[in-house]
Amino acid sequence: MSKPLSQRHRIEVEFDGGPFAGWQRQDNAPSVQQVIEEAAEHFAGGPCACYGAGRTDAGVHALAMTAHLDLPKAVDAFTVQNALNALMRPHPIAIIRAAPVGDDFHARFSCIERRYLYRLVTRRSPLALERGKAWRVPLILDVEAMRHGAAHLLGLQDFTTFRSVHCQAQTAVKTLTDIVIETDDERIDIRLRAPSFLHNQVRSIVGTLERVAAGRWSPDDVRSALEAKDRSRCGPVAPAHGLYFDQAIYPEPGASPERDSPS
Amino acid sequence: MSKPLSQRHRIEVEFDGGPFAGWQRQDNAPSVQQVIEEAAEHFAGGPCACYGAGRTDAGVHALAMTAHLDLPKAVDAFTVQNALNALMRPHPIAIIRAAPVGDDFHARFSCIERRYLYRLVTRRSPLALERGKAWRVPLILDVEAMRHGAAHLLGLQDFTTFRSVHCQAQTAVKTLTDIVIETDDERIDIRLRAPSFLHNQVRSIVGTLERVAAGRWSPDDVRSALEAKDRSRCGPVAPAHGLYFDQAIYPEPGASPERDSPS
Repeated sequence: MSKPLSQRHRIEVEFDGGPFAGWQRQDNAPSVQQVIEEAAEHFAGGPCACYGAGRTDAGVHALAMTAHLDLPKAVDAFTVQNALNALMRPHPIAIIRAAPVGDDFHARFSCIERRYLYRLVTRRSPLALERGKAWRVPLILDVEAMRHGAAHLLGLQDFTTFRSVHCQAQTAVKTLTDIVIETDDERIDIRLRAPSFLHNQVRSIVGTLERVAAGRWSPDDVRSALEAKDRSRCGPVAPAHGLYFDQAIYPEPGASPERDSPS
Repeated sequence: MSKPLSQRHRIEVEFDGGPFAGWQRQDNAPSVQQVIEEAAEHFAGGPCACYGAGRTDAGVHALAMTAHLDLPKAVDAFTVQNALNALMRPHPIAIIRAAPVGDDFHARFSCIERRYLYRLVTRRSPLALERGKAWRVPLILDVEAMRHGAAHLLGLQDFTTFRSVHCQAQTAVKTLTDIVIETDDERIDIRLRAPSFLHNQVRSIVGTLERVAAGRWSPDDVRSALEAKDRSRCGPVAPAHGLYFDQAIYPEPGASPERDSPS
């Protein structure tokens, strides 16, 4: 096997968000980005920078957050993955894939779609095995009503109602590509796809759809809330610990001009 | 809804085995049985006894361990479940179902089949989200070879090779009803069914089948090991944290004489 050396690597990161203040580096709180950068600096012997496809709030998990990592010297991807995983122990962060990429790959700016998963469990009893990994709702939920409510949110919309007042995006007008709601026994998985999301958008949507599923809102109330463009019309924001950054999507190599290989 | 009162309840218990020395009460180590009995005694105001369908080793989890719980007074099942779940906090133990049963129901002696699940994940990187919940094997595994090896273990066999030297069962001759191996991406779930299991039998079988899947044993080596009736011929015992007690099966009411309702 050839092991091409590179200073920039694309990495996919699985993490348990429980102990972290979020993906993004912060002054006075532990972040996933900081743990990765410090491990990389330790093994590469110089300053390293790691940029993620998205930011995540405190407590939010990732199945596969894509990031790019810049090292001060050229290294093969196998070594990057193994060294980071060894040095990050015992933090619940794992580099599950690593591959060399060119300078034209940027985890955030090259990304064309983000996917999130929100996990609900409907039962009265506490979660012993999935504590901190799903939102337990002790109610009987109407998933069909939830789907009808979700349908109002698809497409290009002004999501002012469904974003945090702290959101720094220049516009609240965004495309929500898809919401798929899957059920299995007591489990409800809500999968959302969009080119990009606003701050707290997924949790605001899920918290609102839960109210629909519980029968406290009608599906059409979701449309009214959306059309009001008023943050105070949003349902409660669903807890962070049910949310997973699922996947970041990039153009296929060669399918898009900006991804043409320079070599 | 009527809420029939009963002194004996059948309960289904989900637990994370990580913090416990096992299901069974022990003198100097925390057990699931002890946490349940102490919570029951706190709420019922008198001595309580809880018997499980099976014992589990330290670190082994349960998706649904069936037990019966004897209280010093008659209580409805809804109250039993809610009181126990409230009083057991923050232990990772949840009563996920409770129902009144007669004195003829015994979680261990009435049980006609036990089901276990063993979870493997084949990947190099550590488990960030499922830490302590599956056995990570950093090898490419041949699941078809594993299935061929497993087939040698089905039916009525002498499982001397596959039980702990500390096993207290009177005979090692047991029926293994079924082994089903399911795969999904990097995940391998091994599901085993039998009327009853010997001490460490599932972990001994899984540890041996992993050697087959890794190509270190042939599938026929499993038969040779079984026929040797020699504990030293067993593969390595798989770690406890990948094992889940999945389900205990009881005769349908009325299907078996001992389950005829006395009322």
